[in-house]
Amino acid sequence: MAWKIKVGKKLPGPKSARILEKMKKLDGGYGMPFPLVMSKQGEGAYLKDLDGNVFLDFASHIASSPLGYNHPEMRIVTEDICRSVYPLKVAAPDYVIKEHLDLLEELLTITPKGMDAAFFINSGAEAVENAMKICYKKEKKAKVGIGFEGAFHGRTLGALSLTNSKKIYSQDFPMLPMFRLPFTDKASDVLERIVLEEVDASNIAFVMMEPIQGEGGYNIPSKQMVQGIRRITKRNRIPLIMDEVQAGMGRTGKWWAHEHFDIKPDVMTAAKALQVGATIASKSMFPNQPGVISSTWGGGQLVDLVAGLQTIKIIKKEKLLQHNEKMGAYIKKVLEDMQTRHPEITNIRGIDLKMAFDMPSKDARDKLVAESVRRGLLILGAGKQGVRLIPPYIITEEDANAAMRVIEESLVQIWEHPKRITRAERYSEVSV
Amino acid sequence: MAWKIKVGKKLPGPKSARILEKMKKLDGGYGMPFPLVMSKQGEGAYLKDLDGNVFLDFASHIASSPLGYNHPEMRIVTEDICRSVYPLKVAAPDYVIKEHLDLLEELLTITPKGMDAAFFINSGAEAVENAMKICYKKEKKAKVGIGFEGAFHGRTLGALSLTNSKKIYSQDFPMLPMFRLPFTDKASDVLERIVLEEVDASNIAFVMMEPIQGEGGYNIPSKQMVQGIRRITKRNRIPLIMDEVQAGMGRTGKWWAHEHFDIKPDVMTAAKALQVGATIASKSMFPNQPGVISSTWGGGQLVDLVAGLQTIKIIKKEKLLQHNEKMGAYIKKVLEDMQTRHPEITNIRGIDLKMAFDMPSKDARDKLVAESVRRGLLILGAGKQGVRLIPPYIITEEDANAAMRVIEESLVQIWEHPKRITRAERYSEVSV
Repeated sequence: MAWKIKVGKKLPGPKSARILEKMKKLDGGYGMPFPLVMSKQGEGAYLKDLDGNVFLDFASHIASSPLGYNHPEMRIVTEDICRSVYPLKVAAPDYVIKEHLDLLEELLTITPKGMDAAFFINSGAEAVENAMKICYKKEKKAKVGIGFEGAFHGRTLGALSLTNSKKIYSQDFPMLPMFRLPFTDKASDVLERIVLEEVDASNIAFVMMEPIQGEGGYNIPSKQMVQGIRRITKRNRIPLIMDEVQAGMGRTGKWWAHEHFDIKPDVMTAAKALQVGATIASKSMFPNQPGVISSTWGGGQLVDLVAGLQTIKIIKKEKLLQHNEKMGAYIKKVLEDMQTRHPEITNIRGIDLKMAFDMPSKDARDKLVAESVRRGLLILGAGKQGVRLIPPYIITEEDANAAMRVIEESLVQIWEHPKRITRAERYSEVSV
Repeated sequence: MAWKIKVGKKLPGPKSARILEKMKKLDGGYGMPFPLVMSKQGEGAYLKDLDGNVFLDFASHIASSPLGYNHPEMRIVTEDICRSVYPLKVAAPDYVIKEHLDLLEELLTITPKGMDAAFFINSGAEAVENAMKICYKKEKKAKVGIGFEGAFHGRTLGALSLTNSKKIYSQDFPMLPMFRLPFTDKASDVLERIVLEEVDASNIAFVMMEPIQGEGGYNIPSKQMVQGIRRITKRNRIPLIMDEVQAGMGRTGKWWAHEHFDIKPDVMTAAKALQVGATIASKSMFPNQPGVISSTWGGGQLVDLVAGLQTIKIIKKEKLLQHNEKMGAYIKKVLEDMQTRHPEITNIRGIDLKMAFDMPSKDARDKLVAESVRRGLLILGAGKQGVRLIPPYIITEEDANAAMRVIEESLVQIWEHPKRITRAERYSEVSV
């Protein structure tokens, strides 16, 4: 059966609505989910909800399901591990399992030269926290970190001290000491000035950056900017951390997005598409005293370990890096073509399957996203007025065409019916 | 087949040794694991390694496998979910799944009255981070937290600011502002003095405590102490967070260890035995603005969600709270009896299956643990010179007898052969 978008008039459908209503009441972290509750059915980039609606997913669980729904070769390995053993959650610091080593070895085949060790941990935020920790530890008096305006590195309080993409994420929380650079070509000048005038380089524990900003708006730095930062950090012996949690693992046609800028960081993070969090560096960057970094479940979820391993293997086997490059170019071309009819979309940007464009305002962006979701295309905003497109790596040209068609229809719709959609209405009629 | 301890002369065995050697080289967080690599085989409290050695597990993956190995009713549900769908890691803030609601509803049947909402998150540390965050958010100018000497709350930088059980965990890291109380009957006096003399109550975001300290040495506070803290926090409108990550979920014969002290906290954390991290409170304690707390994978690991649900159901169905009480009393009795022959073990303490005793020194403790592991009993240290016993909830009297026999044989052995065992030798001959 060929999957196609098929959505009812009212979203969420009645079964989904009942569950969303209860979730809103009981879930302390309830936000603004898509107007659906997932069923177990789906294929490729298509997902069916409990009410039988079929959505085309260009959000990929925020870049963490690169192989889409029910990829048969994923199902085999995850089913197999679940049939084999329980507990699946292993206390990794004390109980070693071979699957941990298997993923370590496979991951280290795709990391940049010299990055020969990794520490697995429970989330992208924890990967960032541990990247920070090994840098603080390296230079004992270094207690200050440096991040970027518009950055997103996660929501635990350490990672949050560097996160700056939305005010709401960090407002009212105490923060660790950080400086912030603009995410522009001025960054290296500002960094240079900080080192000269504000704080001695030996007190700076790290500079952390996303190779392409995610939440902050899919902002792509210039090669000159990234290389400038690398030059200054190297000269001053400040470790450079590249946060590859969203951008890495092949989405941009290279395994790691920072490779597009011809530099090498000292520490790197991964998560999302990898299925586990990982802090990656040369073994010499890690503390040699046992117990400095650790976590009961760090690297111990057997299903995640085998799924991460299989993800890398499938990306290699199906040559998805090249495919992502090809599909990225195709989507860009279709968007540019669409732009000739809809000059309201601007700033088309991105590398391969990490793509975005801007709408004239936040309001117009929110409308476009809501209208697209209502028409069965799952997409997300990014930054102030951006729309991000992060489909799974396995999409076809037909999937891309279907998605672009929904976006264009939605553009037509919202300009013809310019009623303002509030954030609360954005997706759902659910109220508690 | 009845499982029994069976270990070779040399641990780790050759197959395990090869894997441990590679792990030591590639794993940035390599610590001091047990001298084994797990196979898929095991039953009840027994675990077989790749070399065919059989260990009796009184460490329970640091309290996170309450049902032991290959519990058939766990295997059914985890296998079923893995056979049904992929991805198993769902981006919970955007994609709702029914299994998330199912665990929420089941968990809220066992939380104290008034605690009617929970936020699922990736680890115990992240549960603590989010407990802190909702308290900081509640009182906007409150930027100071209060914790305890000897506490362990996790290793992300926020949680780490409260962690105090070992110097090595937090040395050289920048910390958020915290005061620290002694974990003794003087605690409430010290808290009272801080509020009177040091910092206005309105600037204090929370007091966080473990109902029974874990890593810090299985220290049990007096009822008077806990009630004193509750009284002062209530009078000053300071939220009290009980960190139940290790102690909670039925290990102490009640669902939550703080229930032994007849108090009610404002916020609670859970993880480990629950299979997912959870920040638990009344819905009104959580921020009502969407997006303040969130996490891509928070509450989205389908296997963990169904395993957590099944864990609660099995604990109820098999009446394991009562069983834990009975087995705890039995182990205590055997330990007290052993003490008459071995006065070197002191300070036998604990509630039900969270039990510990002290050895005369750190060195003697390390020797006892190493010797017991060599004889096939997996146990862990706690605090300065304590040994902790945290078996799975499903142990039988025979299991308890087998474990106690190993401990007594090890006591005899180490006093007769008092060669000093260094930490590095503690378990393994592996060297890289």
